[in-house]
Amino acid sequence: MPAQAHMSIGMNILGHGGHQAAWRQAEVEPRACLDVSYYQNIARISERGTLDAIFLADGPALGGDVGSQPAGRLEPTVLLTAVALATTHIGVIATCSSSYNSPYNLARRLQSVDHISGGRTAWNVVTNAGDAAARNFGLAGAPVHADRYGRADEFVDVVVKLWDSWEDDAIIGDAAAGIYADPAKVHEIDHHGPHFVVRGPLNVPRSPQGRPVIVQAGSSEGGKALGSRRADAIFTTQTTLEDGIAFYQEMKSRARGWGRNPDHLKIMPGISTVIGSTEGEAQRRCDELDSWLGEQGLAGQIAQRTGLPLSALDLDGPLPWEKIGKVVDFERGSHGFLEAQLNLARREGLTVRQLSRRIRSGHRLVVGSPEQVADTMEQWFRAGAADGFNLMPDMFPSGAEIFVDEVVPILRARGLFRHEYTGTTLRDHLGLPYPHSQFATPEAGRRQDAS
Amino acid sequence: MPAQAHMSIGMNILGHGGHQAAWRQAEVEPRACLDVSYYQNIARISERGTLDAIFLADGPALGGDVGSQPAGRLEPTVLLTAVALATTHIGVIATCSSSYNSPYNLARRLQSVDHISGGRTAWNVVTNAGDAAARNFGLAGAPVHADRYGRADEFVDVVVKLWDSWEDDAIIGDAAAGIYADPAKVHEIDHHGPHFVVRGPLNVPRSPQGRPVIVQAGSSEGGKALGSRRADAIFTTQTTLEDGIAFYQEMKSRARGWGRNPDHLKIMPGISTVIGSTEGEAQRRCDELDSWLGEQGLAGQIAQRTGLPLSALDLDGPLPWEKIGKVVDFERGSHGFLEAQLNLARREGLTVRQLSRRIRSGHRLVVGSPEQVADTMEQWFRAGAADGFNLMPDMFPSGAEIFVDEVVPILRARGLFRHEYTGTTLRDHLGLPYPHSQFATPEAGRRQDAS
Repeated sequence: MPAQAHMSIGMNILGHGGHQAAWRQAEVEPRACLDVSYYQNIARISERGTLDAIFLADGPALGGDVGSQPAGRLEPTVLLTAVALATTHIGVIATCSSSYNSPYNLARRLQSVDHISGGRTAWNVVTNAGDAAARNFGLAGAPVHADRYGRADEFVDVVVKLWDSWEDDAIIGDAAAGIYADPAKVHEIDHHGPHFVVRGPLNVPRSPQGRPVIVQAGSSEGGKALGSRRADAIFTTQTTLEDGIAFYQEMKSRARGWGRNPDHLKIMPGISTVIGSTEGEAQRRCDELDSWLGEQGLAGQIAQRTGLPLSALDLDGPLPWEKIGKVVDFERGSHGFLEAQLNLARREGLTVRQLSRRIRSGHRLVVGSPEQVADTMEQWFRAGAADGFNLMPDMFPSGAEIFVDEVVPILRARGLFRHEYTGTTLRDHLGLPYPHSQFATPEAGRRQDAS
Repeated sequence: MPAQAHMSIGMNILGHGGHQAAWRQAEVEPRACLDVSYYQNIARISERGTLDAIFLADGPALGGDVGSQPAGRLEPTVLLTAVALATTHIGVIATCSSSYNSPYNLARRLQSVDHISGGRTAWNVVTNAGDAAARNFGLAGAPVHADRYGRADEFVDVVVKLWDSWEDDAIIGDAAAGIYADPAKVHEIDHHGPHFVVRGPLNVPRSPQGRPVIVQAGSSEGGKALGSRRADAIFTTQTTLEDGIAFYQEMKSRARGWGRNPDHLKIMPGISTVIGSTEGEAQRRCDELDSWLGEQGLAGQIAQRTGLPLSALDLDGPLPWEKIGKVVDFERGSHGFLEAQLNLARREGLTVRQLSRRIRSGHRLVVGSPEQVADTMEQWFRAGAADGFNLMPDMFPSGAEIFVDEVVPILRARGLFRHEYTGTTLRDHLGLPYPHSQFATPEAGRRQDAS
């Protein structure tokens, strides 16, 4: 069992739900994704369940087929500001690109959200594999994998330096004496690297949790190196317990290799859920959603993740292995999603149809009763495959409500999940230590530790 | 008298107030500028007075002397999201740089705030003159004036194209039929220019007011050209009625020259206020604030705007004209602020001390009773020097409360200002028409106009 006493759970608000056909069921308006109250409602439900955070995936391009699927989404930092103001405890995790932002602007915006939310903000660092995003920023296509991660590494370093550029006790705030801050505790960072030259300091001081939590979600070599060195939490796609344990151990070991306490790196695999009061009811809910997709729709999800044309896929045949290159040659897509799918299909000899019924949104799919969902979460947690989970319910808001009302009480009864929030910041929820500024003098650090 | 029936008023929330010493009076905490509730409170006060908008100046660098003055501020798009959610009608105007953003990200974020606010958002386009900002983005110093405005022109074009990339009626939203949008009404913009190559479409559809309002605040030749062509409102610093009328006429004439209806370009000079129940009380309030600054502090404000060293200024002498170059040679600073100051000092033969008592925050200073403040606003409005005002009270929140409670009723009684909001969007408040997409077919435009 992992070092931490209970698991962490993040709610991944992915469009109308993790199931591609969720919007067809019309539980909410087709335009719900453009309505801030849709997200605020799901966040309030999640907070009722004392979840750690809500999470928003993102990319700076119009993805998918706008004709047949809701497309377009509000920018995460402003949307999550609105969500934070509608809640009091739950964390908010914004996905923002290291390839298509500048570190100063992004550091500042995230630190601002961290102030407004009272220290409940995290940044999910992504490099954006797709060409569509690149074409909105003057490039013909996405930079290759190694270049994206080289930039991401330095980007994160610069952002953290900027977040650290004010020491914790830099502000004195003595109006009568006319002293605002101690200039010796507000640092130019003077960063000079291959990708960025940044003077600093940031124009936003430290926040209630010091600085935002860092999340990383890439499972390629570049992603794993960055995540184990810099991240506080890793979102990952793991489709079998065996792979999950191996990934968990690898990341903890890598963290140790960087001189870090591995308990301060939380591993959170994705889990797609379809929950009914019985397994049969859950399966009927899943079948009803699947019926909107049809056979081609199921295959389309596999095509999308593998980059294969739909015509290359036979629903009742195996994956066309001869057409699938090595993962490391898959320069412009997500390594993690592809590898997880291929591993599962290969290990269990699945057909395309079978594979589509085991993976949704690129993540492991669990269709079952609240007990069954709790069982698999407990299994992964106790086996050392997960410190927590990034949850992708099939459909919002009902999928979130069922989880909070039916699964959370079971996890609590088993001693696996909190009954109430015991802290106020996202670092508190995740069990992460307060990060002192890298520019702080040892004296200052000691003073703070003693206080 | 201008074409519009009543004036527009924006509340400029500049730190603790327009007076540099406002924070010393300790009306609020020294850290108030980092507290979202500080801004929400001023916005609610302003909304009680049915003001058009609140306005946030900004720049991506830590400005001023952090030792002696509150420094560091929350990023405007996330802060104004929080302000919009605490209010129902008042507009929110975010200053964002065209020199240090990419058009896709900024277009998306502002359009997202416009959705969240229900169509109450505006973008104040600035090019950022200072070197401090440039050094946070890999440059040794700010680009020269002409380069900044060349980029700004194209930047605004790209942003508006992206805002127009979804036609008003692009979303069909038929869940049963599985049709989300009409792909023929979601346009790639395929922009290829000297500064930007952007494919589009934006990943956020049109907002309740179509797209954010555009504000421009530069009074240089580049600023005036950009503003008259592209902006819906101009914030300007005008220190004498004579200059105000000339600027107003020039901008309306320039708008006509671009083929625009000049009524759709609102001219809003800045006005710094110190209000007391009598002129004497106002003067005492001003003296009390000034006393924190001392003699050198007063001269320091003039030094800052002119770029002269403090040592070159004699408080009781004239400006050292021989040391002041031509405004057009003032490559790296704000032309508008400098010109307005020099014009006033030259026209009235003012000493440095006298000038400091006439201009604050770079804008015309009015110290007086509520009637006197209403009088000068009425005079400028009726004389054709202003469609409205960008208001800079001396100190928050009291300066905003006095204006709303004492001056607004006078303006209303004189028929110069609204008694209640008659619309819901910022375009409604400002009297601006709904902007149809530049990519819409004429048929689509007619259908909407007829509906």
